[in-house]
Amino acid sequence: MTSCTISTWARPPTICRRCLGTLRWALQPVRVRRRQPLEDEGFRSVHRRRAGPGRPEGGLPQHHGMGIPSIAIMLHELIKLLYHARCTDVTVVRIGTSGGIGLNPGTVVITKQSVDATFLPRFEQVILGKTVVRGTDLDGDLAEELLQCGKDLDSFETIIGNTMCTMDFYEGQARLDGAFCSYTEEDKQSYLREAYAAGVRNIEMESSVFAAMCNLSGLRAAVVCVTLLDRQKGDQLTSSHDVMQSYQQRPQMLVGHFIKKRMGCPALERGCCKQ
Amino acid sequence: MTSCTISTWARPPTICRRCLGTLRWALQPVRVRRRQPLEDEGFRSVHRRRAGPGRPEGGLPQHHGMGIPSIAIMLHELIKLLYHARCTDVTVVRIGTSGGIGLNPGTVVITKQSVDATFLPRFEQVILGKTVVRGTDLDGDLAEELLQCGKDLDSFETIIGNTMCTMDFYEGQARLDGAFCSYTEEDKQSYLREAYAAGVRNIEMESSVFAAMCNLSGLRAAVVCVTLLDRQKGDQLTSSHDVMQSYQQRPQMLVGHFIKKRMGCPALERGCCKQ
Repeated sequence: MTSCTISTWARPPTICRRCLGTLRWALQPVRVRRRQPLEDEGFRSVHRRRAGPGRPEGGLPQHHGMGIPSIAIMLHELIKLLYHARCTDVTVVRIGTSGGIGLNPGTVVITKQSVDATFLPRFEQVILGKTVVRGTDLDGDLAEELLQCGKDLDSFETIIGNTMCTMDFYEGQARLDGAFCSYTEEDKQSYLREAYAAGVRNIEMESSVFAAMCNLSGLRAAVVCVTLLDRQKGDQLTSSHDVMQSYQQRPQMLVGHFIKKRMGCPALERGCCKQ
Repeated sequence: MTSCTISTWARPPTICRRCLGTLRWALQPVRVRRRQPLEDEGFRSVHRRRAGPGRPEGGLPQHHGMGIPSIAIMLHELIKLLYHARCTDVTVVRIGTSGGIGLNPGTVVITKQSVDATFLPRFEQVILGKTVVRGTDLDGDLAEELLQCGKDLDSFETIIGNTMCTMDFYEGQARLDGAFCSYTEEDKQSYLREAYAAGVRNIEMESSVFAAMCNLSGLRAAVVCVTLLDRQKGDQLTSSHDVMQSYQQRPQMLVGHFIKKRMGCPALERGCCKQ
């Protein structure tokens, strides 16, 4: 089973329609509520029908809000749901948007390692007041499989690179346009150059905890984010609304193709289904 | 001017109706979009009418998502908006929900200091890969003024105490019902007792960056959160939906009373308006 995690409310139904069209494997949008009683038999049976062994080929899109705390809450609920629904052979893919470094806007980055603001592949989790460090490596084979899907589609640039995950959108990502800024354009450029030299190709706000929690649960995981701008050239989006919309569809198209390929979509085999 | 920050989408209009009724000072719900061009004259004139010197008595409710990164993005936008709208004499109040320690569910806690998971009043902000520590004290006079509002209303328990702000809802708050749990009930109780001894009366996920950013901007700030459960007695909510709804209205009632009192509401002066 494949679960996609997405950072806005609006996207799950769009993914179902856009990525998988009228396929019989259409994804089932499910909203997991915080504090929903997972142990309840009614809950379990509904979700087992949607996500569980009765539909081993199924998919499960999930939304989350912005930042590590928000995606972490969703992941706790998702992992409990997968356990109670007795799902096996699960792949989880985070799709979203990001700021790029040294890339053309619209490039899709498949994450090799999620790194922190000092470019180290780790996530610090505070438990009972003590800091525990967790690894943030992602599945290498899955990343290569997704890269191949990008090549199959041949519609946009797709690369594998490191993703920097920050706690803050402005100061945390060296932006100059926040309410506070204690550094210069030169300091920013120097920091982004260091990041590039460390293999960082894009910046977002959720991948580290996502990688750490999937590692800990034994779930195969990937992060696929499109870059909306090149941060070395600016901090604000300058492309038109339509261009932005088309960029945001790219990770969905790529993961939709990946799901269909994995499931042996007959249209793909006939070579008449690229999206 | 008073701005309320709230952690869900649904609440701003409710606050306008519930807290301020038909008063001419009704709060104006405004959604600040990430990346909205604040420098644009059209944008400034609209928001100046709503929040600015033309309506010095106005209020401005703002929503945010869960966790520090989400409220930080909103606060960057809000602080820029207040600057461009030339607002002066601004008070910002975060209202929300929390888990209590040693308190009856439904108690409203006005935060004295927002502390981290080691009970220290500080917020760590990473800038260009380096950690900067910022203070999280809140305005003492404002907290006392809000406490007096609780006494005026005399409808629920209101106290002043420290609030622990965590990065995670499960392991970060010593919950036993997350997807992972590497500690015992005894470890949890011991940690919560330590927190209580350090003056912590409730736990939530946004107050530290809120206090730090308001301090840095010179904004008078307060955090008013209702406790939905006593964490020493459990991790999940057990009260009915109606009881939860009534608890969630308490911070809104208290801050609504505070705004009306500050503005010299005639009905309050006649003693015929308690809510």
